[in-house]
Amino acid sequence: MTGHGEDRYSFWNVKKLPGRLITFEGTEGAGKSTLIAELETRLAAQGHACVRTREPGGHPLAERIREILLSSAMDSWTELFLYEAARAEHLAQVILPGLEAGKTVLCDRFTDSTLAYQGAGRGLPWDAIDQLNTVATRGIRPDLTVWLDIDPAAGLQSAREITRFEREGVEFQTRVRSGFLKAMRRDPKRWLRIGARSGTPQELAEQVLKAIEKRLAPAARKPKSKARTAKGQRRVRR
Amino acid sequence: MTGHGEDRYSFWNVKKLPGRLITFEGTEGAGKSTLIAELETRLAAQGHACVRTREPGGHPLAERIREILLSSAMDSWTELFLYEAARAEHLAQVILPGLEAGKTVLCDRFTDSTLAYQGAGRGLPWDAIDQLNTVATRGIRPDLTVWLDIDPAAGLQSAREITRFEREGVEFQTRVRSGFLKAMRRDPKRWLRIGARSGTPQELAEQVLKAIEKRLAPAARKPKSKARTAKGQRRVRR
Repeated sequence: MTGHGEDRYSFWNVKKLPGRLITFEGTEGAGKSTLIAELETRLAAQGHACVRTREPGGHPLAERIREILLSSAMDSWTELFLYEAARAEHLAQVILPGLEAGKTVLCDRFTDSTLAYQGAGRGLPWDAIDQLNTVATRGIRPDLTVWLDIDPAAGLQSAREITRFEREGVEFQTRVRSGFLKAMRRDPKRWLRIGARSGTPQELAEQVLKAIEKRLAPAARKPKSKARTAKGQRRVRR
Repeated sequence: MTGHGEDRYSFWNVKKLPGRLITFEGTEGAGKSTLIAELETRLAAQGHACVRTREPGGHPLAERIREILLSSAMDSWTELFLYEAARAEHLAQVILPGLEAGKTVLCDRFTDSTLAYQGAGRGLPWDAIDQLNTVATRGIRPDLTVWLDIDPAAGLQSAREITRFEREGVEFQTRVRSGFLKAMRRDPKRWLRIGARSGTPQELAEQVLKAIEKRLAPAARKPKSKARTAKGQRRVRR
């Protein structure tokens, strides 16, 4: 019954992977894309192999699901399952191969967006979302989550893409922001919260780089001394 | 956080609904569509209001998801989540309104197909599928499940639609059939297993009608005496 090639990663026997997963969260218009691009440039200059990707999407099939998600009105539970479907595919095709190859994976949105948008935003219960997040990620969790925090009204004004989520308006975005706050408080050591307007993209990237150096084990390709990894080390699935 | 119109049916407070949900399961080519059509005609002649539908699909958005499912190769977990997404939408838009209105809902495939195809067929663990099935159906379970059982090789020869599931071949269909057997053994009182070639469509429909009369409470529109509902009564979410 098992042994199918595509089922290599059952969610109860995830191994420690050599790469690092860094996720970026926040309400619309915070400037995540700019920060991630800046960060990728700097990490690459330091010799780190990076994978820059996004959810929902990041792979052809997941992008087809993204189109449905961003264009069609639907039941909130349907929305939740579609996000998890896109995540499962993205994880199998992009994130896991990157982590296995020892790369630093920079992912624009991940499981915390589902808690914030479908949980706090739509009103779905967090315990159900936690269950589905665990199945879709096969137990893989981010090593570091960067929350680019912005006032929801200011963020909506600078959002580049207007989807049905932006059209929900400030009240919805405010609920979503409270969801990120709640998610951060459940697991504060994993999070780095940065004011989206607290500096230039370069300055924000510098803050993230410092957190990466301080908190994360170096990527497998550039092993450093043990002393450096001892403090605050978090790996994919301990 | 709650009170959104589309979230009327949280999965932990499903009420007893007046309609009846009858699902039809089996490997490819067993003749489910023909049986369901025959059954609908007879139930309608008896004055029962019916809803005839199918999974995946049964609603425009769910049909879009069906297209992706039947046409694209994908990770098995993605496949599972897409089936559950289509189910969540179909449930919200078709099945629940039908059950609420006291109708007899005849559904071609439901949760047991997910256990059989994604569980026994693809090798995904049943406990994860059970979790997702429960969330997607919000705890709603069939009142009766009719399994039209056929030899997988014979079924494949008469399958009308050739999707990537038919192309998996006899070995896959044989695993799927063993999945239906396992699902039936977990909950035998809910199931009616009929040999797909054991009679004409009219004769098979007659067998199902007898089981409906014997096992199920009458639909709300035609209340009968209590004596008739006492034996083997199963309702949506006891």
